[in-house]
Amino acid sequence: MRDVYIIGVGMTKFGELWDKSLRDLFVEASLQAIENADVDHIQSMYVGAMSAGLFVGQEHIASLLSDYLGNEGIPATHVESACASGGIAVRQGYIEVASGISDIVLAGGVEKMNDGADVTFALATASDQEYEAFHGVTFPGLYAMIARAHMEKYGTTREQLAEVAVKNHEHGLKNPNAQFQMAISRDTVMKSTMVADPLRLLDCSPVTDGAAAVIICSEDVAKKSGRPLVKLRASSQATDYLALHSRKDLASLPSVARAAKKAYKDADTKPEDIDVFEVHDCFTIAELVVIEELGIVERGKSGAAVEAGITRLGGKIPVNTSGGLKSKGHPVGATGTAQIIEIVEQLRGDAGDRQVTDARLGLAQNMGGSGGSCVIHILEGIS
Amino acid sequence: MRDVYIIGVGMTKFGELWDKSLRDLFVEASLQAIENADVDHIQSMYVGAMSAGLFVGQEHIASLLSDYLGNEGIPATHVESACASGGIAVRQGYIEVASGISDIVLAGGVEKMNDGADVTFALATASDQEYEAFHGVTFPGLYAMIARAHMEKYGTTREQLAEVAVKNHEHGLKNPNAQFQMAISRDTVMKSTMVADPLRLLDCSPVTDGAAAVIICSEDVAKKSGRPLVKLRASSQATDYLALHSRKDLASLPSVARAAKKAYKDADTKPEDIDVFEVHDCFTIAELVVIEELGIVERGKSGAAVEAGITRLGGKIPVNTSGGLKSKGHPVGATGTAQIIEIVEQLRGDAGDRQVTDARLGLAQNMGGSGGSCVIHILEGIS
Repeated sequence: MRDVYIIGVGMTKFGELWDKSLRDLFVEASLQAIENADVDHIQSMYVGAMSAGLFVGQEHIASLLSDYLGNEGIPATHVESACASGGIAVRQGYIEVASGISDIVLAGGVEKMNDGADVTFALATASDQEYEAFHGVTFPGLYAMIARAHMEKYGTTREQLAEVAVKNHEHGLKNPNAQFQMAISRDTVMKSTMVADPLRLLDCSPVTDGAAAVIICSEDVAKKSGRPLVKLRASSQATDYLALHSRKDLASLPSVARAAKKAYKDADTKPEDIDVFEVHDCFTIAELVVIEELGIVERGKSGAAVEAGITRLGGKIPVNTSGGLKSKGHPVGATGTAQIIEIVEQLRGDAGDRQVTDARLGLAQNMGGSGGSCVIHILEGIS
Repeated sequence: MRDVYIIGVGMTKFGELWDKSLRDLFVEASLQAIENADVDHIQSMYVGAMSAGLFVGQEHIASLLSDYLGNEGIPATHVESACASGGIAVRQGYIEVASGISDIVLAGGVEKMNDGADVTFALATASDQEYEAFHGVTFPGLYAMIARAHMEKYGTTREQLAEVAVKNHEHGLKNPNAQFQMAISRDTVMKSTMVADPLRLLDCSPVTDGAAAVIICSEDVAKKSGRPLVKLRASSQATDYLALHSRKDLASLPSVARAAKKAYKDADTKPEDIDVFEVHDCFTIAELVVIEELGIVERGKSGAAVEAGITRLGGKIPVNTSGGLKSKGHPVGATGTAQIIEIVEQLRGDAGDRQVTDARLGLAQNMGGSGGSCVIHILEGIS
């Protein structure tokens, strides 16, 4: 297996982008990434999207997007793992470059959610359709059950959940690509509309349009590129029972623990060595459980850690400096790639007001459904 | 890059399987493949499906199917390239084993099309939704335009199109997994209901439920398995403009030519050396254009070749001994994997009444949409 690098990144602004179509968004992000990498061609591409079929009535999107990007017949593959699709796309690019089959691969994610589709139905297809969605449970409901279990088992409080949203909005305020660039208070979160008890509107990531893309390449291409060197030290993936009812403990997310164990091993590192984390905060409770599974904080102590400011920018272990899914927005198929872009920018020292001082190692954790799938990347900035 | 083998195959019967769900079908095919390979675990899996979202309202299917298959949290990825999804799944498994990341990977395809969904709409999402489907063109219409162009340019006749269906039904009669096990005459095809002039009902592959899976592994695992050795000599993929209106010549399929050129090069072989072909005959005209692009017959001569019986079982170059999509059925996401299974069975000498004598090299060609994507595998039986 060869070593693999990322030498280019590009993303659209995230938000309700009514004047841009799926193809507009992906091409915009991809051209930015190609320009940023300063390459004159790509040999293959991977596109992560959860459901262009249900959102905009279009399948076969990798061929379509390769065509619109102006490629000459290169291999183009669409990968899907619900909200983990964007991370999976990068992982497939990583595997292809590691294998030696290609030297320069574009991997990206896209989702056009605001286009008149039944978004709640489309998202619910990431759960077990026959045993969860059919009975009326949607994702806020599934994560509300996880939140209740965590509160019951570890004494996590409603206020601690709110602190995740407050922190991520504080970070998003510094991110020009974020959907919501506004600070919110704990009180605003606590008084926002109830969605699925205990989760309120401001505990939930929004419905978002957007795309993100990276250029993945071999060591040889990376070194010749003259671009800052960011190495993919690990790319790991794991699954779990899709439906919550099959799991032993609702207050945990085993797919995250599995993928993390493999990633730390492959990168020969441990949580304490990582300088910056992007994690999948589709709901505030998700960030709490995930930082426990990643070993950033002790099990059951995530609420207290967030409340103490440990995971804030400037804190000991900054989490979601981009604003996270909560504030940056969550175009489901694009999210995993965008997380990796935030890490690359941090490691390059390009994160502007969001910069974590001397960041050398970063981790991006992307998740599908209620944790039915998880993909983790560990990246290193090489100066 | 490491050498890659297939040591196990499994598939369901293809047909209108009203009593079996998406998960039933995939698990049935996968367990067969695992048993056939005689392995006690798999390390990763790829699932090809065109649109479980639109057909049965379920996304995130790789995690779901890994869960139902009883796996313990292994990586599981859904890939999609419309009707080429099943071939792409095998290609991703090939890349992962070639890279050294995994030694034993399951790759399969599945589609549950008969479940009440609007099948014509779902299939049309493989074309350019904004510029083709929106205006009312569906796949029979797109392939009818290709047929008209081929007839105009090369003098291909309506009778020659019919001969493709007659041949494939003759082959399907010998395949216990085929959806239609009945011989048809040229006259029956010529008198069947008009769908999109010149294509009639019996020029079109049917709407089918089914699944197929293979076990892909490293040379080391293959040699220790004691199973017949079938080597993946090449796995290639290419794309083209998605919409017909962007293409220079409607009577050709450039993605097939591109993928074929690469496959022959990687396998260090040429069309004349291949003993048996499975090709993507979603419509009779598709088989004609594809055998020209693959270099099996001269450009413009495919109609005459089929009429002369050259591509019949027992002929010089047997094409679609399984019955092809036309007679075996076309569960879109499963088709590409099922084609590879037919080739494996031919190379193992396990094809029963369909056996091609002394088959050593075989090629499977799988295609998405109206040729917007194509994936080709060349396999070798090693005795």
